[in-house]
This record gives sequence, C-alpha cells and structure tokens, in this order.
Amino acid sequence: MVEPARLSLNTATVRERWTLRQCIEGCARHGIGGISPWRDMLAACGVAEAARLIQDHGLTVTGLCRGGMFPAATASGFQRNLDDNRRAIDEAAAIGARCLVLVVGGLPEGSKSLAGARAQVREGIAAVLDHARRAGIPLAIEPLHPMYAGDRSCVTSLAEANDLCDALGPGVGIALDVYHVWWDAALAREIVRAGRERLLAFHVCDWLVPTRDLLFDRGMMGDGVIDIPLIRRMVEAVGYDGLIEVEIFSRDHWWKEDPDEVLRTLIARARTSI
Amino acid sequence: MVEPARLSLNTATVRERWTLRQCIEGCARHGIGGISPWRDMLAACGVAEAARLIQDHGLTVTGLCRGGMFPAATASGFQRNLDDNRRAIDEAAAIGARCLVLVVGGLPEGSKSLAGARAQVREGIAAVLDHARRAGIPLAIEPLHPMYAGDRSCVTSLAEANDLCDALGPGVGIALDVYHVWWDAALAREIVRAGRERLLAFHVCDWLVPTRDLLFDRGMMGDGVIDIPLIRRMVEAVGYDGLIEVEIFSRDHWWKEDPDEVLRTLIARARTSI
Repeated sequence: MVEPARLSLNTATVRERWTLRQCIEGCARHGIGGISPWRDMLAACGVAEAARLIQDHGLTVTGLCRGGMFPAATASGFQRNLDDNRRAIDEAAAIGARCLVLVVGGLPEGSKSLAGARAQVREGIAAVLDHARRAGIPLAIEPLHPMYAGDRSCVTSLAEANDLCDALGPGVGIALDVYHVWWDAALAREIVRAGRERLLAFHVCDWLVPTRDLLFDRGMMGDGVIDIPLIRRMVEAVGYDGLIEVEIFSRDHWWKEDPDEVLRTLIARARTSI
Repeated sequence: MVEPARLSLNTATVRERWTLRQCIEGCARHGIGGISPWRDMLAACGVAEAARLIQDHGLTVTGLCRGGMFPAATASGFQRNLDDNRRAIDEAAAIGARCLVLVVGGLPEGSKSLAGARAQVREGIAAVLDHARRAGIPLAIEPLHPMYAGDRSCVTSLAEANDLCDALGPGVGIALDVYHVWWDAALAREIVRAGRERLLAFHVCDWLVPTRDLLFDRGMMGDGVIDIPLIRRMVEAVGYDGLIEVEIFSRDHWWKEDPDEVLRTLIARARTSI
C-alpha cells in the first residue's frame, strides 16, 4: 500500500510517448511525488528548463539515469567515459537529483575479462568521485541482473555493489531495483549490509514469466513473480524511507499505452502490489 | 585445447534433427568420448536399447538430463515430482550415467516465494537421496542462470548449490555449466569450495551478445563473451578431470544445421576456444 505521493516516475516508463515536460506535468497531474529523468530526455528539454519545470511542479528528483559505462578498450575511451560521467554529475546537480544512477558497464569491445571490466569500474568511480562529492551528488551503483553482465553491467549483485562501497568510501551508494536482484539468495543479508545510508534509490517493476526479451519485457508491478512487498519490507526495515521509483521497459505493452493510463495503472498497482 | 575424446555431447545440442541412436552413432563416428541424453530422447529410444547402443559404441555417459523440478503447488504434486525423480534415477543407473543432473525447479504456480521453493528443493532432494545412493547415482545440482529463477531453477548460483551440498551430505554434487555461472563474482571461490568431489559434470557453450532469447539462443564456444578457458582452468585446478560436455540450445542457428557439421564445429572449437 504505497500512496502516489511516495512514487517516482522513471521517465523510461513512458519514454516512447512523452517528452520530459509531459512527464513532469503528468506526475503533477496524477499526484506522483517524484521523477527520475534519463539524460537524453533531459538534453532534449534543456537542463535549465527541466530544472525550472521540476521545481515549479514540486517534484523530488529521485535520480538521474544514468552515468557509468566505464570500461573501455582504450585509455582514451576510458577518459572519454570519465568525462561523460563528470558531465552527468553536473547535470544531476543542476536538477537537484538525489543521486546519479550508475549502470557501470560490461565488457569492452573484444574483451572477455570480467575481472578487467570490474577493475575499470572501480577505477572509474574512484576517478570521478571527488567531482561528485564537490557537486554534492551521491553516486548510486545499480547492480544489474546477471543477464546484462556482457554488455551493460559487470556488477551483477548487491554483494558486489556493497564491496565497491566498502572500497570507495563516502559519496558512493546503491540504487536497488527489484528486477535486478529479486533472485539473489543473499539479498536479505546484503540489504542489511547496505543499510540506510547506502540505499539511495529503490526501483520497482516486475519479472514476467515468460520473459520474451532480455531488455524490453519488464512487467507492471503485480503482473509477474517478484514478491515486491517482501523486498520493500527489507529495505524499510533498515530505514529506507525515500520514494519508490517505477521503471518499466516494456516495448510491446506499456510503451504502447496512453501514458496517462500507464500512470493510473501504476498508481493502482502501488496500492495493491508494492 | 581439448581433444574430441574428452568431449561429451549433450543431446539437446542436435535434438531437432537426430534421435538418440543417431547421436550415439554420431559421437562414435566423430571420436567424441561421451554423451549426455535427455530423458525424452531416451524414452523414445527405449532405455535398454539405449544402454546397449551406448555400451557398444564405448561412450561415457556424463549425465542424464534431467531430474529436479521439485517445487509444486500441492502436496500430491510434490509427491509426483519425487516419484518422477526416482524413475529418473533408475534410468540413469540403467544407462550407467555418471550422475543425474538436477534442474531443481522454480516457483510453483501462483507462488512468489523463492524461499518456499528453495525449501521444497532441499526437501525434495533429501527425499530421493537414499534411492539415489542405493542406485549408485550421484545427484548433480545444476545452478541455473538467475534469468530462470521464476520458472526453472530457484538455485541461481554455485554458492547456493554448495550450501545444498553442505546440508545434504554424500551423494549430492554439482553440474557446473559456464553459461549459468560465468557472470558470478564469487565463481573462483565457490569452485574451490566445491572441490573435485562435488564437481560431477562440466558443461560448456557461450553467451552471445546480444542474446535474443532467454532459452534458445546459446552460442557455440568462441562465438560469445565467456572466458571458457579461464573457467576450465579453475575446475581443473581443483582436480576436475572428467569429460567436458557441450550443451547448446540454439533454435535459430545450430539446431537448424546438419548435426554432422555441428559436431565438426564443436570439435574444432574445443581445440581453440575451450
């Protein structure tokens, strides 16, 4: 039973039909308390204009999606990735985001070394961390489902994200998405290990059975098999009291729906299935 | 560099075009040392006839695929699953299999409780373990990729399989498939923990980027991003010296090829990419 004011809309959920301005106005119209924009939509709107709109509508910015993607095949590529992360940090600061979500990246072109990619991720976060601290933007490592280990995130579990936090110190935390971690037998333990301070964001959607696409077949809360209330209780038991962000990539279903209907549905599901 | 005599053909790799008899004859023709049949193909051939053919062709049976699928929504369903596992154990014994591979099962219909499913798996293996011990058939828990947690295997990591082995004692081991575990940051440690005695089978194929289907888009060794030689060195470092089983579900590619060409290809790849 989660009220709309405690929800945040990740703009990817309606990205096929709404601009960022429409997302902001839509959230306000439906009483949704927060928003989490993707950078391409932010760029299309203009950062300053987006910041003004978000403030005018009284929304909390639960995160900016996304920084990360550190591993590169070349040193110059790695530097470019660092530069891009610094820009993302600045954008997050400009819109008053609670954190910058990091999808850390997978294997660089031609590489099969997960250990190498993981080392680059650690080095990359460390390299931009001072910039983030000065900007007042916490970096939220988002462990992604292991099915993305090759191309999107060599950080595949909450345990790994916690290890990175241990290594990197203040200014680094975690964005926890039930879709990516629900299968993990160590989840309860690692949420306790993360604790309130590290849990910078909490994302929900659902795992459909069958899942027809690795990227774009996420389900609306309640339509899949994730025990979302169980995981919510776990994060709240350690003190998480932030907004709950809804992020649904659904090419063949929700992305085709009228976004107002999507928002009505996710508000209804927040009452029954979160 | 793995010679054909050290390979085993999991019959799923050519199942769309060959019967079990053709698989057995094909392995012998190509100098492949072992075979791992699926139960439906075994039933179609007849267990006694298959046992005779396998023996006549001098093949090692690296495993029978598969037992498991323990969790059920009802007590009677659970009992039926146990009975089916006992039959699978008997079939494995009849063909002289080195182990019965267990794909343990996911969430029962209508359930979202992974903890409940995991408890049923533990109870289920315990319930058939005496039967397996008497038959001389080790049970090989196969941790499956977390993307199958909902519908196929609530055991999603080698750590969980090791925990089950710890709990259940002698007669239970592990079938390790690189496809399911390659992403795991704890893999090296958990292979050491498993050790030679628990590692009953070692399966290979490759993870394609992109992967277009959750079930049927596995790659031929060398075509994907898994560092297979690295994982082979890990299992061999703890003493694994059994055959290396090739199991490729590939609806749109390898299943459409001439099986003799598939066998030639996997033999060539065993020399370059395992």
